[in-house]
Amino acid sequence: MSLFNQRMQALLEDYETLVSKRNSPLPGNNGWFQRYKNPVLTAAHTPLFWRYDLDPEANPFLMERIGMNGVMNAGAIKWNGNYLLVARVEGVDRKSFFAIAESPNGIDNFRFWDYPIVIPENDDPVTNVYDMRLTLHEDGWIYGVFCAERFDGTAEEGDLSKAKASAGIVRTKDMIKWERLPDVESKSQQRNVVLHPEFVEGKYALYTRPQDGFISAGSGLGIGWTLVEDMTKTVITEEKIVDRRFYHTIKELKNGEGPAPIKTAKGWLHLAHGVRACAAGLRYVLYLYMTSLEDPSKLIASPGGYFMAPEGEERVGDVSNVLFSNGWIADDDGTVFIYYASSDTRMHVATSTLDRLVDYCFQTPEDGLTSFSSVQALSKQIDKNLRFLERSR
Amino acid sequence: MSLFNQRMQALLEDYETLVSKRNSPLPGNNGWFQRYKNPVLTAAHTPLFWRYDLDPEANPFLMERIGMNGVMNAGAIKWNGNYLLVARVEGVDRKSFFAIAESPNGIDNFRFWDYPIVIPENDDPVTNVYDMRLTLHEDGWIYGVFCAERFDGTAEEGDLSKAKASAGIVRTKDMIKWERLPDVESKSQQRNVVLHPEFVEGKYALYTRPQDGFISAGSGLGIGWTLVEDMTKTVITEEKIVDRRFYHTIKELKNGEGPAPIKTAKGWLHLAHGVRACAAGLRYVLYLYMTSLEDPSKLIASPGGYFMAPEGEERVGDVSNVLFSNGWIADDDGTVFIYYASSDTRMHVATSTLDRLVDYCFQTPEDGLTSFSSVQALSKQIDKNLRFLERSR
Repeated sequence: MSLFNQRMQALLEDYETLVSKRNSPLPGNNGWFQRYKNPVLTAAHTPLFWRYDLDPEANPFLMERIGMNGVMNAGAIKWNGNYLLVARVEGVDRKSFFAIAESPNGIDNFRFWDYPIVIPENDDPVTNVYDMRLTLHEDGWIYGVFCAERFDGTAEEGDLSKAKASAGIVRTKDMIKWERLPDVESKSQQRNVVLHPEFVEGKYALYTRPQDGFISAGSGLGIGWTLVEDMTKTVITEEKIVDRRFYHTIKELKNGEGPAPIKTAKGWLHLAHGVRACAAGLRYVLYLYMTSLEDPSKLIASPGGYFMAPEGEERVGDVSNVLFSNGWIADDDGTVFIYYASSDTRMHVATSTLDRLVDYCFQTPEDGLTSFSSVQALSKQIDKNLRFLERSR
Repeated sequence: MSLFNQRMQALLEDYETLVSKRNSPLPGNNGWFQRYKNPVLTAAHTPLFWRYDLDPEANPFLMERIGMNGVMNAGAIKWNGNYLLVARVEGVDRKSFFAIAESPNGIDNFRFWDYPIVIPENDDPVTNVYDMRLTLHEDGWIYGVFCAERFDGTAEEGDLSKAKASAGIVRTKDMIKWERLPDVESKSQQRNVVLHPEFVEGKYALYTRPQDGFISAGSGLGIGWTLVEDMTKTVITEEKIVDRRFYHTIKELKNGEGPAPIKTAKGWLHLAHGVRACAAGLRYVLYLYMTSLEDPSKLIASPGGYFMAPEGEERVGDVSNVLFSNGWIADDDGTVFIYYASSDTRMHVATSTLDRLVDYCFQTPEDGLTSFSSVQALSKQIDKNLRFLERSR
């Protein structure tokens, strides 16, 4: 066998071992969710025939031609009984694109479809695309809302980093053909825009995240909410703040809606991310909140603090100290698959149930916003527990 | 045996075990290069007789007296059949200096020479020195060009961080006696200045990296190029940009020449670093490019994306998320030893060959600068591979 074929066979065996590896729950959890041992998607999960030119004449050393850097921030949807992630794949060239990976059980054996998704260009081509949120809307379409990044021409000479963020929209009925709709029009920049799954007052409802710059939320005060008549012509004129950010909380600097919320008997269940600054840069964690079934923009439960923060190997990656989620799937039996990325590098899964998550939202004390009130809440729980332990003795 | 002598013996044994440890290739590579398991130099590789006062009366506890913090950013040269690194050693006092470590095989058993290099002071003493690039020039001298840092007296009161970067020059014929030449004169600050190994139009040629501040490239648009008459009186008047940085690439914020380029049959092979900003600070990766034999300032190959990025334990260190290289050695058989530092903490080696690196440079798609063009390049490769796999079935 030629050296080329030997290397090819070794690569194929390693690849199959990786993608077919069984996942298993990690020991120890606090009852909120269950982490799993292996990431569900990494750069090494992208097909070999994406990265290598497999023609021995054109690629005698069998080297990668198009390197992949990471797989992160996936939208998620149950599709024909399988679990689909619309992942953001980042090449070594720093450009991201969307690609679908499919698993029969939601926790392992994710395999990418043969081709990435082609997002058709519109009149104003974008440089990069990020973090698609999928919504199966009651109008029958599956919408994908993503962040579209363009260079900001007002940058000073030599400043090659100034960018503008807006929300791009695609829709599909088969997950294969994607129709591009016009970007969301907004006076401010926008990231983390998410379509609510139901009509509200006969209109489409968008969670927004107004911001001053590409990175900085600036004067934007949190996760916003707006109604639009038509998804083919979305214009944000007024925004109401649904979930506000506060001084000295896990969402002091920024926050943003994660995936589209899940409808439960007790309200809409939301997964979001909160950001604070520290000496090592920004820290991204995940939190939950709930809004009213009657008015999905009305906060009805706001458990204090984070729901998930980076742990172990999740802490480190291309952009360290980051958990981010824009995809989850609720099964009919109430199981919830939370897909989250760590440090802009890899995708993980955590499982929970709707009952647990709703219980968490309503029973976890709210953030008292000061050390003193945190100590009061803690002491109250200790009082109760010590009396309880005394009684049960 | 006294406690002092017991401790001494234990330290010596540990030290010998460390510096004589055999290195081995890490499993798995994408064909571009081969990583190795152990760093080749760390703070613990500096001789015990640098760090400890070995006199039992003066140091009864046998404690370190001059602590070393890290070893990084080494220039490299083949010397009398051995592999020499001119490393930047950083003490616990944050001051760096240069010291030579020598290995018989280039991948392990690096041992420091007894004394660090003494860089003679000139009229305007420097606070710190960094990252020497070695060039065996056809004029017969070995030049070391390094970054010289001085406090910027224009800083506001209380601002103790404002610094000026310029390029210092030394030269030697025996690697032992180093002659200091006047610093490079330049209207802008300069870092990452590298001497080209050959005369161009009868002059010395320097790769430059003009910048506005000590850290920020500001209006500097990339790796520059300038010709000077005399290395004992280098004045940069005009700079041409050889390799430009671009929005939303791995070199959006800054880039800089690594070691002096290697001459190949197909052009000059360059190793450089690219920097982008992210929520966790700056991210430094390594990339390659090639320039013409006829005109070394003319870009002829620019493979898209990074060649090497931090992986595993490389990701974390004193300055996390950094790979940096300013030294490589090409052996006569075409083997290339790439010496790179991770996270400003330790030195590693990766090996490749000139054939592979040149193939990589010419066959890797260029950066298309948008997500859409990256998807097009990827889809083209998938098309080709799927047809090819179909045919081979």
